[in-house]
Amino acid sequence: MKGNIVVGQSGGPTAVINSSLAGVVSKARELGVKKIYGMHHGIQGFLNEDLVDMGEYIKEDKDIELLKRTPSAFLGSCRYKLPKIEGNEEVYDKIFAILEKYDIECLFYIGGNDSMDTIKMLSDYAALKGKTQRFMGVPKTIDNDLPITDHCPGYGSAAKYIATSLKEVIRDNASFGIEKPTVLICEIMGRHAGWLTAAAALSRDEDCEGPDMIYLPERTFDYDDFLARIKDLSVKKSSVVVAVSEGVKLADGRFVCELGGGSDFVDAFGHKQLSGCAVTLANKVAADTGLKTRAIEFSTLQRAATHVASLNDINEAFNVGYLACKAADEGQTGMMITIDVKERSPYQVGYGIYDIHQIANVERPVPDEWISEDGTDVLEGYVEYARPLILGELTPLMVNGVPKHLVLSRDSYRK
Amino acid sequence: MKGNIVVGQSGGPTAVINSSLAGVVSKARELGVKKIYGMHHGIQGFLNEDLVDMGEYIKEDKDIELLKRTPSAFLGSCRYKLPKIEGNEEVYDKIFAILEKYDIECLFYIGGNDSMDTIKMLSDYAALKGKTQRFMGVPKTIDNDLPITDHCPGYGSAAKYIATSLKEVIRDNASFGIEKPTVLICEIMGRHAGWLTAAAALSRDEDCEGPDMIYLPERTFDYDDFLARIKDLSVKKSSVVVAVSEGVKLADGRFVCELGGGSDFVDAFGHKQLSGCAVTLANKVAADTGLKTRAIEFSTLQRAATHVASLNDINEAFNVGYLACKAADEGQTGMMITIDVKERSPYQVGYGIYDIHQIANVERPVPDEWISEDGTDVLEGYVEYARPLILGELTPLMVNGVPKHLVLSRDSYRK
Repeated sequence: MKGNIVVGQSGGPTAVINSSLAGVVSKARELGVKKIYGMHHGIQGFLNEDLVDMGEYIKEDKDIELLKRTPSAFLGSCRYKLPKIEGNEEVYDKIFAILEKYDIECLFYIGGNDSMDTIKMLSDYAALKGKTQRFMGVPKTIDNDLPITDHCPGYGSAAKYIATSLKEVIRDNASFGIEKPTVLICEIMGRHAGWLTAAAALSRDEDCEGPDMIYLPERTFDYDDFLARIKDLSVKKSSVVVAVSEGVKLADGRFVCELGGGSDFVDAFGHKQLSGCAVTLANKVAADTGLKTRAIEFSTLQRAATHVASLNDINEAFNVGYLACKAADEGQTGMMITIDVKERSPYQVGYGIYDIHQIANVERPVPDEWISEDGTDVLEGYVEYARPLILGELTPLMVNGVPKHLVLSRDSYRK
Repeated sequence: MKGNIVVGQSGGPTAVINSSLAGVVSKARELGVKKIYGMHHGIQGFLNEDLVDMGEYIKEDKDIELLKRTPSAFLGSCRYKLPKIEGNEEVYDKIFAILEKYDIECLFYIGGNDSMDTIKMLSDYAALKGKTQRFMGVPKTIDNDLPITDHCPGYGSAAKYIATSLKEVIRDNASFGIEKPTVLICEIMGRHAGWLTAAAALSRDEDCEGPDMIYLPERTFDYDDFLARIKDLSVKKSSVVVAVSEGVKLADGRFVCELGGGSDFVDAFGHKQLSGCAVTLANKVAADTGLKTRAIEFSTLQRAATHVASLNDINEAFNVGYLACKAADEGQTGMMITIDVKERSPYQVGYGIYDIHQIANVERPVPDEWISEDGTDVLEGYVEYARPLILGELTPLMVNGVPKHLVLSRDSYRK
């Protein structure tokens, strides 16, 4: 590669999105790329020519190791969707003018559905106008809802955090309950797809019975049936634990959190801002049963907890970044690197490359055959699928009792 | 020691309360104690003769190691306060009858303020009636509010979890904010004392600026002043993070969570059940400023996250249990083991023993000189105090990608 490269991070961060950045940067360093630019706050920052010189931060291998151990988006993220090309050529012309100004030959975008759309649009525009720059997508999403790839980097670590934390709070909840059980309701991220909530099942082992019920957004939530099950469990058990997706909906189409109010902000992509599903259910169950209830929202902890990230996930995140850079160097454009699992046990993984047009804007739900018939649990097929994704740990670099991170010097305070 | 012993766990669990149990059991095994009983669900279970034979679970050293890595109360806990002796002799007679029936010579109770009261009452009753059984308190509380002891086992690990998780969500929050900052409000446990919330300051280092403000319950919360500070920060910064104790109160004596409703359940000790302080503030700030806000409650995760426990804390928790058993063997009763810090850097720790009457029912707040004059932060004196308590890690035993625990076989399902 003769020119420079630029890499951006977009959408909700994950525990390993910086491993993908580390992968892109590592391969670019191997290739002798002169300038490795980072977009400060994704394509939105790029449009303001807000660029980071990665060479200032990654000078030796230990910097790569620290970047791999740093949660959230090192470069800053954004939620910005490119407009359609027709009638908005000035946005695209601006992007390509900046690419030319900085002699950027390849652009890498690490993100989920909306970010892969950015790669699609840019590569389409390049094809339309005969531009030579190349555009590669690097998959990232804790939601695990991208198609084609077996799974998405970021998911394994979020799943490991959920399984670990749930196992710990299950023990906590079991410590009381001498007279009546406490009903613990844990809310897990995932607006449309239940992949993260399904990870609650990974807490199950011979030393942990796991949650009593798991509710995914793939199925309609029936409060009366739920309440009847809670009442039944509360007689038999001294601890009742439920995992529920933030995105579960009632038969009438309302979100469960709307049962008792809850906020209804809308983000830049028009996604409904959900919160309070577990709190809503906990309050309602307490009122309807007199049982003590408790709600826990794993919140952004589940995408930020790099201290307990999955080693398999960190390595795969690194590799998809590395391979995206390699593929771009070999002339590919408008593609995304995929993870292809050869064997689940013992785990054997390979990588592929796929046309971005088949990936962008397509969401993959949890397969129906992995959800129990009554819709209150996930089945062994899911556990077999997900188990290898949470295996292994990467020791954090602990300084003064907390994990050390690599950070942008201009973070937080405005320029 | 010729007789048997019994050990119980009481009050809110911690990440290391089982290390104290491991310490008691280890010393008892060394002493050749024949039967090491555990109270299933503390003194409340003991009153029902619900006893666990620890010999069934601790057969070799690796069982001790696994117990040290297990969160929450292995034996189950309770919130049960013994009634005053006058007029309630039948409760005490029943306890002593059970002690005699099982040939129990020493009783150990691992807990906080309310649990130390149990030890005080039982040793008072023994003195009153000329009983020979001995009673020893083993300190435990994430709240860190016991007097005399430098700090309480359980606090260091909760503080480490808070510092680690806060550092991670600070990075997460910093990843957006290209146009306007998100105001992140993190709610931390601690009804009356701000020790846990103060631990938010431990996230600060050269790679993390930490929270912008820290609000302890030791100071009155002024919403208008708070809002003015948020508005000011939101102009200067691309990320605003506030740590706030669940127990902060307004000048009129109401809890902050009562600004916008919030639950007002009362627990068995008459403590007000707080929740939603961060949610209340996040909603109110969003309404008053138009800024995007987010609330995170660290909830029971902060007392259950043994996977990131402090090694110093684990060791000290073990030692206070071990030394309580040693002291009881040597004839002591009505006492609690204390932690005496000789030097904070490099950290040097010793242990003492203290009359339970000076400890039970006394709460120790964060010293005034460690809180900033404007009440929005903690000072360096606190950081010097707390830093050694969060140092070191004990590698979890990971099985199938999640930490392995030692569990009571009869947990959760009712007998």
